[in-house]
Amino acid sequence: LGLKLLYKSIMLFIFTAMLVVKIGGNIIDNEIALNSFLKDFAKLNGPKILIHGGGKIASALAKTMGIETKMIDGRRITDAETLKLVTMVYGGLINKNIVAQLQAFECNAVGVCGVDGNLLLAQKKEHPSIDFGFIGSIQSVDTTILELFFENNFVPVVAPLTHDKNGNLLNTNADDIASNIAIALSKKYDVTFVYCFEKKGLLLDIENEDSVLSSINISEIEKLKTEGIVTDGMIPKVDNIKFAIESGVQKVILCHASEINNLNNNIGTTFKP
Amino acid sequence: LGLKLLYKSIMLFIFTAMLVVKIGGNIIDNEIALNSFLKDFAKLNGPKILIHGGGKIASALAKTMGIETKMIDGRRITDAETLKLVTMVYGGLINKNIVAQLQAFECNAVGVCGVDGNLLLAQKKEHPSIDFGFIGSIQSVDTTILELFFENNFVPVVAPLTHDKNGNLLNTNADDIASNIAIALSKKYDVTFVYCFEKKGLLLDIENEDSVLSSINISEIEKLKTEGIVTDGMIPKVDNIKFAIESGVQKVILCHASEINNLNNNIGTTFKP
Repeated sequence: LGLKLLYKSIMLFIFTAMLVVKIGGNIIDNEIALNSFLKDFAKLNGPKILIHGGGKIASALAKTMGIETKMIDGRRITDAETLKLVTMVYGGLINKNIVAQLQAFECNAVGVCGVDGNLLLAQKKEHPSIDFGFIGSIQSVDTTILELFFENNFVPVVAPLTHDKNGNLLNTNADDIASNIAIALSKKYDVTFVYCFEKKGLLLDIENEDSVLSSINISEIEKLKTEGIVTDGMIPKVDNIKFAIESGVQKVILCHASEINNLNNNIGTTFKP
Repeated sequence: LGLKLLYKSIMLFIFTAMLVVKIGGNIIDNEIALNSFLKDFAKLNGPKILIHGGGKIASALAKTMGIETKMIDGRRITDAETLKLVTMVYGGLINKNIVAQLQAFECNAVGVCGVDGNLLLAQKKEHPSIDFGFIGSIQSVDTTILELFFENNFVPVVAPLTHDKNGNLLNTNADDIASNIAIALSKKYDVTFVYCFEKKGLLLDIENEDSVLSSINISEIEKLKTEGIVTDGMIPKVDNIKFAIESGVQKVILCHASEINNLNNNIGTTFKP
């Protein structure tokens, strides 16, 4: 254990700090909140990467286009038409508008998705009974292009799409993409994975926004589930965070998107190994 | 003149060869022709960049979404809704699908548009009597991100969108983007600008596909216009090519998209200074 800690200390000393930030659909759906978030994100020092989700824009557009939206376990059943739709909305509309706003805030952003530079290779998600369609399950992360961006002061903005190397794009969960990228980058950088959402952190009492648990060791997570403190939609998020830390991510902070400019002031919930 | 030629010879010797390839809407609209073109493009040796147009997909989708398509002088009048549409179609659907196909052909492509890495800065196109809406007129090209891609064997694929640095994207003519990028790159590379379209080159007789003019000096272009050989839709194309050469692009080839794999065999029409 002593040697392990020593090794870790040395590596943290050598490793460059890296911020991996995920923003979800609730912020993307709110134009003012998104712009304010991007203004704060643009100011953060050092190398950083933003991974964004999809939000409700795709569903709204699906309605306009007469495409039926089917969700199972929070995943969008993705037939060929829906894949076109999410490619347009995630890879085009949302991604390029985020980049345009960051550029206006003097942040030299570059919008990519998992197909660009072979960043995220995936396979169609297999399920014994449900056909999810063109949904990707991530197989590997090639961070070459991200490192190139970091070394040259570009800020990558990643849309939730992957590819299968056979010419097909795949609709892929943004949380999965964020944790997989955070894990891959943690081998070369001292990663702080900031998971932004619409609450102030992990709440001991869901009704009380001030009941934020400031810090938690991942070994305590199962207990919180048993006690009913981590429930419903929080379970996949927390499991994703646990997986990220178990896989080597140095630090994870779960916080409200509006607090991203306050990361050093002990905001949100910090997850520790 | 002797010194100028000597300088040019030395620079061509020092400069790396660079292929700047433009494909237009007619190829993009044809799934089989596009895939075949991309297979050929993937095989081309050395650093290269692909700039693509929009095609009829945007208009078809506009119809589905109940957005009216208005074209003046071949430019799409771009209101706020149309801007969203072209951002989705050009920056998302077309761009990411081209990249996915190139990745399948072992070409390490990266899809970007003019906002990414501040590649193409533009202003809203001004016109004394027509309001084109969100149409960009290119102000400057920053090739930093492209050079980074070339140096690291990534192949940029550029969608026809620019930005104004105030957070707005702008719909921008792909021919203008291609010639501006070719000109900017010609300062650092020995550029061959390959302009692919649906004919075999500049035809002396528009009815006869075998009447390709194999080579032309740009000083002869005005004569061809007067003689009625260069007419209609060919005029802006040829003017764009002339402008590119006058601005320093070393060589321009106008050819059929299916001939891209045959560039060394004197195909199409070569434009010379």
